[in-house]
Amino acid sequence: MKSFIEVNSESHFPIQNLPYGVFSTENNPTPRIGVAIGDYVLDLSVLEKEGFFTDIIGPNSTIFNRPTLNDFMSSGREIWSGVRKRLQLLLSEDEPQLRDNYDLRNQALFLQNEVDLHLPVEIGDYTDFYASKDHATNVGIMFRGKENALMPNWTHLPVGYHGRASSVVLSGTSIRRPLGQTKPKDADHPVFGSCRQLDFELEMGCLIGTGNNRGEPIPVDEAEKHVFGMVLVNDWSARDIQAWEYQPLGPFLAKNFATSIAPWIVPLEALEPFRVKGPIQDPKPLEYLEQSEPGSFNIHLEVHLRGKKMNNPKQICSSNYQNLYWSIAQEVAHHTIGGCDLNTGDLLASGTISGPEKESRGSLLELTWRGSEPIQLNSEEKREWLEDGDELTMTGWCQGDGYRIGFGEVIGVIEPALDLEVALRKKANVSK
Amino acid sequence: MKSFIEVNSESHFPIQNLPYGVFSTENNPTPRIGVAIGDYVLDLSVLEKEGFFTDIIGPNSTIFNRPTLNDFMSSGREIWSGVRKRLQLLLSEDEPQLRDNYDLRNQALFLQNEVDLHLPVEIGDYTDFYASKDHATNVGIMFRGKENALMPNWTHLPVGYHGRASSVVLSGTSIRRPLGQTKPKDADHPVFGSCRQLDFELEMGCLIGTGNNRGEPIPVDEAEKHVFGMVLVNDWSARDIQAWEYQPLGPFLAKNFATSIAPWIVPLEALEPFRVKGPIQDPKPLEYLEQSEPGSFNIHLEVHLRGKKMNNPKQICSSNYQNLYWSIAQEVAHHTIGGCDLNTGDLLASGTISGPEKESRGSLLELTWRGSEPIQLNSEEKREWLEDGDELTMTGWCQGDGYRIGFGEVIGVIEPALDLEVALRKKANVSK
Repeated sequence: MKSFIEVNSESHFPIQNLPYGVFSTENNPTPRIGVAIGDYVLDLSVLEKEGFFTDIIGPNSTIFNRPTLNDFMSSGREIWSGVRKRLQLLLSEDEPQLRDNYDLRNQALFLQNEVDLHLPVEIGDYTDFYASKDHATNVGIMFRGKENALMPNWTHLPVGYHGRASSVVLSGTSIRRPLGQTKPKDADHPVFGSCRQLDFELEMGCLIGTGNNRGEPIPVDEAEKHVFGMVLVNDWSARDIQAWEYQPLGPFLAKNFATSIAPWIVPLEALEPFRVKGPIQDPKPLEYLEQSEPGSFNIHLEVHLRGKKMNNPKQICSSNYQNLYWSIAQEVAHHTIGGCDLNTGDLLASGTISGPEKESRGSLLELTWRGSEPIQLNSEEKREWLEDGDELTMTGWCQGDGYRIGFGEVIGVIEPALDLEVALRKKANVSK
Repeated sequence: MKSFIEVNSESHFPIQNLPYGVFSTENNPTPRIGVAIGDYVLDLSVLEKEGFFTDIIGPNSTIFNRPTLNDFMSSGREIWSGVRKRLQLLLSEDEPQLRDNYDLRNQALFLQNEVDLHLPVEIGDYTDFYASKDHATNVGIMFRGKENALMPNWTHLPVGYHGRASSVVLSGTSIRRPLGQTKPKDADHPVFGSCRQLDFELEMGCLIGTGNNRGEPIPVDEAEKHVFGMVLVNDWSARDIQAWEYQPLGPFLAKNFATSIAPWIVPLEALEPFRVKGPIQDPKPLEYLEQSEPGSFNIHLEVHLRGKKMNNPKQICSSNYQNLYWSIAQEVAHHTIGGCDLNTGDLLASGTISGPEKESRGSLLELTWRGSEPIQLNSEEKREWLEDGDELTMTGWCQGDGYRIGFGEVIGVIEPALDLEVALRKKANVSK
C-alpha cells in the first residue's frame, strides 16, 4: 500500500497510519480535523464537504468541521473504520479521485510546518494507570523501601487514579516549574518554594471513542471496541511535592500543573499488525480481567533531552510499550466494573513505561535513582532532575516492513518558576 | 426583607437565599435556569427575556436560557451580585413589578413539585478534599492504626485528590451497589463480588465561577471571589473496595461509581451573615495558606436513613460545616499554587464533615466504627453499612433570625448490584 504523496521509510505518517489531529491555517483560522500523511495534513472537512464520506456518515455531515475530534469519536467503530478505508483509497497511488484533482489537492493538502495544531480532543475525565511492573517496583523501592516496593494489590488489579482533565495541554506548551510545599529529608516542617525535583513520565494514552452507561460495566473482551486510538503522553511530575503530599490520597499537585499530549491520535486499527501478547500475568487475574486475545502492542519509545546550552538533544531513554503488565482492555474493564461511566474523549494513560533495563526507565526518578546517580548528557552537562530551559521530547513508533506507524512527538520546554512574591500577588506580574 | 411569596420560617428558600438551579416543565421541556423561592421556582429566562437584567448583563442576553449555569457562573461576581439584588427587589413584598403582574407571574413562577430538576452545572473537574480533622483521624485510626492516624502532612496542607467528574449525578438518581475486588481480612487473595461495605459521606462542595490561567496561582485572600456558591454533596463510598485498592495512588473505584449533588446552588453572598472563624490552625500554615478573614460558615447538617421496611427516616447524623479545619479559600489557593487552572463549573468538595461528637460523624464508617458498633435505626432495624433499598437523605441550612438559608436535600436510594453474570455479559441484561 503506497500513497501518491511521497513518504520516506522513516516518516511517522505513511498511508498505513493516518492519525487524526486538529489544525488551522493562516488563510482559514477555523480549527478542523485532518490526518497526517507524509509531510502533509489532509483536511477532512474539505473531503466531507465534497461528499467523499456521504455513504459512510450520511449526507450533510459536518463532523470534520469541528474544533475537536469528539463528535467523530462518538460515531463509533463502524464509521471510524469506514472513513479510514476511504482515506486509504483516496490517498492510494492507484486512485485518481484525489491524486489527479489538483484543485482539490490544493484545497485539502497543507504542509505540516505551515499549519497550527490544536489540542485534538475535549477531555471530560483523565485517568492515569500504573501498569509497568518495573516502574512500580523502582518507585516503590525508592519511596517505601524494598519490602514494601510493590503493594500486595498491584498484581491483582490495574492500579489507577483520577488525574486533572484541565491539566492536559498540547505538545509545545511551555511547562512552568511549579511552586509548592516540600519537606526536606531532615527538616521538621515543610517549606514553600519552587519544585527542585521536576521530572517527566513516558506514557501512552488511549482515548475513549464510545463510552458506557453508568452502572453497566464494559466486559474485558469488548473493551477495545470502545477505544478510538492512542497518543503519546508526558505526565510531568514534581517528585518532591509528590513525596510530601501523596499520603494517603495519592498524587495531586505533583501532577496537575501540566500533562502534555502529542497532536496526533493513531487509530487502534493502525496498530493491529503490531499486536503482541503482554507479559505473563502471575497470579492469574480474576475472571472479569481475563482477556482472551493478546492485548499489547510493540511500540518503540524514546525520550530525548536537550539542555538550553546544548546544540543537540541526547537520547536518555529507549523503551517499549509491550513491557506493560496491564493492557488497555483490562484497564477499561476494571475502570467500569463498579459502574463508572467512560465517555467520548476520556483519556486513560498507562503510567510510566519502564522496562527491565536501565536505559528503558521512563522517568528521571528511575534513570537517576532519585537523583543519586546523575545521567551524563555530554562532556559538560549532567542531570539529576529537569532544569529550566530543558527541552524534553518523547517520540515513538511501530516498526513495520519498510514503514513506521509513528506517534509524532510530545515536546515541552521548562520555564522558570513564578517569582514567589508574584505568586502571592504581592507585586505586579511583570513577566507578561 | 420579605417576599410577596409566602415562605414559612422553616422553608429552605426565603428571599434571603435564592439558590440557583436548572429546571424544565411539562409545557416547556427545555431546561433553563431558575431560583428557588418558597415552594416555587422563579424562571430567570422569562425575566431575562422581559428585560429585567438588561442594565446588568446587557441587551439580548440569553444567559439564563441555558441547560446549565456555566455561562452565568463565568460572567463573574459583579454580575452575580447585580442579578441577586435585582431578584431580591423583584420578589420583595414592597415591589409591584412582578408582584402585581399576574401574567408575568403565571409565566415565571412554577411550583417546585411540578417541575423537573436537572444537574445544574457542567463539571470539568471534580476535586475532593479531606478537610475534617475528626474524620481524617477516625479513618486513619481504622485503616492505619492510632500511631499513623493523621499523616504528618495533614496539618500543613489541605490534602485532596482528583475525583471523577462523570460520576457526579443529581439528587434522586438511584445508586447501584458496585461490583469490584475486595480482600477479606484473612484471605490470601482477593475476590470479586458486590461491595459489602457501602457508605455515604456528608460533604459540601463549592463551585468555581471564574477560574485562573494555568501557571497563575490564586492568592488565598482573593480565592472566594472565584467561588460561585455551595452545594450539598454525598460522596458515596465502597469501603471494602477502597481498602484493597487505595495504596499507593488513592481511592479510585471506591468513589467513581457515583457522587450525588443537590439541585440547588446557594450563592456565597447568601452565606455572609453566617461566616465564622474556622478552628485554630496549629501549626500555623505556610504564608500562601494564611487567610486574613474568617473562612468558614455556620451550616447545620443532617443525615437521615430510611430502610425500605421503615415508614419514617431516622436521623443518624447531626454535624456542622464549621468543624472543618481547612477553608474553601485555602483549598483554592493550595489547588492552584503549582499552576493548576481551575475553571467555571469545577466542583471542590470538602471531604466528610465530621465533628468531635459521636453523632456528628458524617459516614457509616465512623458512626459504626467500621461495622463493629452497628447503629440502631428502630426496634427492628440496625445498620453497619447501607443495605439495598435504603434511602439516604442529607440536608442542611444556616439558621437565621426567623429564616433559614437552606441547601435543599441530596437523596439517593441504593439499588442491588448488577448480577455478576450480566456484568460479565454472559447473559442478557433482563433487568431493564
